[in-house]
Amino acid sequence: MRTIKLILEYDGTDYVGWQVQKNGKAVQEVVRQAVRTMTGEENDVVGASRTDAGVHALGQVAHFTTRTNIPGDGFLRGLNSMIPLDIRVLDARDASKDFHAQKDAKGKIYRYLINTAPVSSALHHRREWHVPHKLDLGAMREVGEVFIGKHDFKAFQASGSSVKHAVRTIKEVEISALSNGVAIEVMGDGFVRHMVRNMVGTMVEAGLGKRGPDDIKKLLEQGERTDAGICAPACGLYLVKVLY
Amino acid sequence: MRTIKLILEYDGTDYVGWQVQKNGKAVQEVVRQAVRTMTGEENDVVGASRTDAGVHALGQVAHFTTRTNIPGDGFLRGLNSMIPLDIRVLDARDASKDFHAQKDAKGKIYRYLINTAPVSSALHHRREWHVPHKLDLGAMREVGEVFIGKHDFKAFQASGSSVKHAVRTIKEVEISALSNGVAIEVMGDGFVRHMVRNMVGTMVEAGLGKRGPDDIKKLLEQGERTDAGICAPACGLYLVKVLY
Repeated sequence: MRTIKLILEYDGTDYVGWQVQKNGKAVQEVVRQAVRTMTGEENDVVGASRTDAGVHALGQVAHFTTRTNIPGDGFLRGLNSMIPLDIRVLDARDASKDFHAQKDAKGKIYRYLINTAPVSSALHHRREWHVPHKLDLGAMREVGEVFIGKHDFKAFQASGSSVKHAVRTIKEVEISALSNGVAIEVMGDGFVRHMVRNMVGTMVEAGLGKRGPDDIKKLLEQGERTDAGICAPACGLYLVKVLY
Repeated sequence: MRTIKLILEYDGTDYVGWQVQKNGKAVQEVVRQAVRTMTGEENDVVGASRTDAGVHALGQVAHFTTRTNIPGDGFLRGLNSMIPLDIRVLDARDASKDFHAQKDAKGKIYRYLINTAPVSSALHHRREWHVPHKLDLGAMREVGEVFIGKHDFKAFQASGSSVKHAVRTIKEVEISALSNGVAIEVMGDGFVRHMVRNMVGTMVEAGLGKRGPDDIKKLLEQGERTDAGICAPACGLYLVKVLY
């Protein structure tokens, strides 16, 4: 039995997310079907991150096992010839037999794009959040600093979700000015559902002068979801890289 | 009677181009309908460039005349609230009464994006031409140089088109390396149909070692369309700016 590791880029716009759902087409399903067609086996394809509906990936990692001897390059070309152009296999190769895309992940890097121009972009509106206001990057960075370290992120998980354990470690929050807006990059050992989008929503509120670092400290210490900021829309979020 | 000048950004993917056609939805038609709804008049909307199906615009210019006294800002907000998100009015303001978006244009700047990565991009495949080969930028620049100046571009117009007069002046051809490919920017006083895309196709062939500057000189002097290079696909082309 071999284990194949895939690196995937996708445009999340037309998908219900990575994970197979009842209500629409999932990226996992599209890739799995193509793998099964190639191998003639009942493979499962396991992804490192369950990206939500509309979220994009530049470097999602997935794995599957197979008894075939199709080489990595064969999977790369074969899968890309079968799946739609809004999902691409960037790399496919043999990993160690016991490699597990999700369980072995040591961390993830996400990027979030915000367009602050007065009018949204016709070309990029499915790839960024349009916030037509001046954002104070200094204030955003102050709040970003507060997130760094090990915290209980229960106030930053999706409303209604009930992960027992929302303690996660954020290693980096980097806020950069773009010609037309702001990019936020977050690196952490793991993320509960909507965590990056809730962090971004809160940082944007800080950039608009509505919140300060002390509010965020309080949220992390004792917070309730309802006290946290708005959830930034999915279309601005990219899974950049999975760290092993 | 007032004349309103619009600056427009659009994603050309889902349109048959700027100009109203029988076979599908045109950008001009969408904008014209929204203008007519706002004014209650039978306005025409004249664009500077007839961008082809699938070609994008970052700065298309258009004008219309109206007897209403809706201010420029009113048109900006009103039109953007009525047209789909893949077309945006970036600016709307009063121009001099006799301003004509097409006849007054002194020149245009187009940009063309080429992705040379081994695998095409899931996120950008509708916005660039995928040429998965190493391109020799020096060779492309040598050919680019040949285009500069006043030439008869009849060998670079769309096959089947019969513009009497294909003499145009190219002022600049700039070829830049991107992290994942190449950008080509062309400035000229005017362009016949498919001219930029045929120029790009020819420059890419030069970058692949299939053509040299002497071939292009010959084409410009005596050429036939069939001798010119391939026509680069529409999806990589952007109308960046109209010069007045």
